[in-house]
Amino acid sequence: MKVIYSPDHKRHAPRDQFIGGALRPNPEVPARAEAILRAIQGRHEVMPPRTFSMDAIRAVHDAGYLRFLEHVHTAWVDRGGAGETGLIPDTFAARASSCRPRDLVHQAGYYGFETQTPILENTFTAAREAAYCALSGAAMLLEDENSVYALCRPPGHHAAGDLYGGYCYLNHAAAAAKYLCAAGRVAVLDVDYHHGNGTQSIFYGSEAVLFVSIHADPDCEYPWFSGHTDETGTGAGLGLNVNLPLAIGSDETRYLEALDRALNEVDRFAPAFLVVSLGVDACREDPLGKFDLPVSAFETIGRRLARADLPTLLVQEGGYDLDSIGACVQNVLDAFGR
Amino acid sequence: MKVIYSPDHKRHAPRDQFIGGALRPNPEVPARAEAILRAIQGRHEVMPPRTFSMDAIRAVHDAGYLRFLEHVHTAWVDRGGAGETGLIPDTFAARASSCRPRDLVHQAGYYGFETQTPILENTFTAAREAAYCALSGAAMLLEDENSVYALCRPPGHHAAGDLYGGYCYLNHAAAAAKYLCAAGRVAVLDVDYHHGNGTQSIFYGSEAVLFVSIHADPDCEYPWFSGHTDETGTGAGLGLNVNLPLAIGSDETRYLEALDRALNEVDRFAPAFLVVSLGVDACREDPLGKFDLPVSAFETIGRRLARADLPTLLVQEGGYDLDSIGACVQNVLDAFGR
Repeated sequence: MKVIYSPDHKRHAPRDQFIGGALRPNPEVPARAEAILRAIQGRHEVMPPRTFSMDAIRAVHDAGYLRFLEHVHTAWVDRGGAGETGLIPDTFAARASSCRPRDLVHQAGYYGFETQTPILENTFTAAREAAYCALSGAAMLLEDENSVYALCRPPGHHAAGDLYGGYCYLNHAAAAAKYLCAAGRVAVLDVDYHHGNGTQSIFYGSEAVLFVSIHADPDCEYPWFSGHTDETGTGAGLGLNVNLPLAIGSDETRYLEALDRALNEVDRFAPAFLVVSLGVDACREDPLGKFDLPVSAFETIGRRLARADLPTLLVQEGGYDLDSIGACVQNVLDAFGR
Repeated sequence: MKVIYSPDHKRHAPRDQFIGGALRPNPEVPARAEAILRAIQGRHEVMPPRTFSMDAIRAVHDAGYLRFLEHVHTAWVDRGGAGETGLIPDTFAARASSCRPRDLVHQAGYYGFETQTPILENTFTAAREAAYCALSGAAMLLEDENSVYALCRPPGHHAAGDLYGGYCYLNHAAAAAKYLCAAGRVAVLDVDYHHGNGTQSIFYGSEAVLFVSIHADPDCEYPWFSGHTDETGTGAGLGLNVNLPLAIGSDETRYLEALDRALNEVDRFAPAFLVVSLGVDACREDPLGKFDLPVSAFETIGRRLARADLPTLLVQEGGYDLDSIGACVQNVLDAFGR
């Protein structure tokens, strides 16, 4: 399988996150992507991303949001912001208060929804390159490539049209899906341990994109405020948003049942393309995840994804255990087999 | 002037806040209310609050919100939460994601909008007693008292019907105003340095309550997402929300001009009662405020408030300089003169 990778991800290296009442180490580190690269680079052909116009990203993200992401770190430094922690918002535009501040730095609490996703000097560059990786894969599917893996970092599926969080800034899978829409309907299947709230939000009213997500029950797990079964889409997208939450501790059997259900939904939608948001934090080794899948389960997952028999773009999302993340991804790619 | 005070405020003593990317000392400390009490207790008659049914608080706050505030600390401790920092949310129900988590602890990010307002063991008790102080003052106005000062702590004006933040949990001024509504129209005049976003939100559609707020321009100051001149109310409350933001650095002259405009609005509304959200952080000594009012300006403010010639309830809000906060409040009360 062709692999798209850019070393620019290393320019975004967050040190901290504020979680559970304290600043603690941020697990979304460059070593994640490097571990994956090491595991797959002898076995699959690795190539750099192409460059795209920002239009491909603007297709799924708000213009003011992109301006904010690109320029806020400079504005923050001009204001005296300093230090390796970077910009973390501390006051948020909650449900009842939705006016966007004119000031770029305070837009962090308007566009951000939590305190674990710092903005550093080159965050925007790294996120944009990751989006280009996914977009390159989409372009290659349009050129009749059968499957491509985009080794994206930072991840993307928690980023909505104008909200960042969950270590995500730009939604690479959504940008790629939108890009593919030019040539047919697209199913996005999110197998990350956490609900893909950003992707859900972007396509919630869309009839061109089916979104199916298997994830930990949001009553017990991040992102807390979405991912329930009764979130089924709206307007033309009604019925095209399918959440399959699983209980904490779910094992391989339960997971594969949900995967089969998800693939049935994909099959019923009869899309022209499949985009997989490939987090591997469902693995039992993962420090953030609380499912009980062995590393070997990702072989089965890869085989079943291939059975959908669709041009498929795999987009890297979460996965935080540096010792097993490479093997999980390698298992998916090898088993996918094309 | 009669003063209502409860020592229960001391049971809520936050140590930390997460702000500017770090845990820093929380300025909303018990010593604030004690400094005010010392300054006024020889000069004004101090009495404890009466007890009210929760209905008086439910009149301005959501039932689920009150259940959350009352029980979340216990739930958090049961979950292993510990330490003097208390519960601080780190993931928020932002604009695009509004489902309330079933889990009480994670409701903190649904009901809370920032990271500076921890919930400690007796936070709810202290906030409820402070609400009782304000409600007692309201009850006394109904019994023909001409003016009462409620020495409330923690403050209240940033708390909306179902949102806490800005060191505020229950909106004492709003509860008192609502209580007074039984006997006539009420004007709430908020002179705290920060916009009273909670009070604005509670009465935004109400024709019975005029809300006027003088505060630092929210483009440059907390609470960032509200407090602009174009927020004028909605429905039956249209035109009954008046924001008078002032530039950072505003002096006594500018402030008193705004106060006169505010009092003209009150006069035009011809209410039966006046509730003043009395923050004194507009004082130049205040570590959070950036206005340039000397301590003596609060004498003039007290005199002009008295000139409205209305049964008046003064409710303590912000003010964080322990050396001057007592003198500021004393100046207002002495000059009010009744």
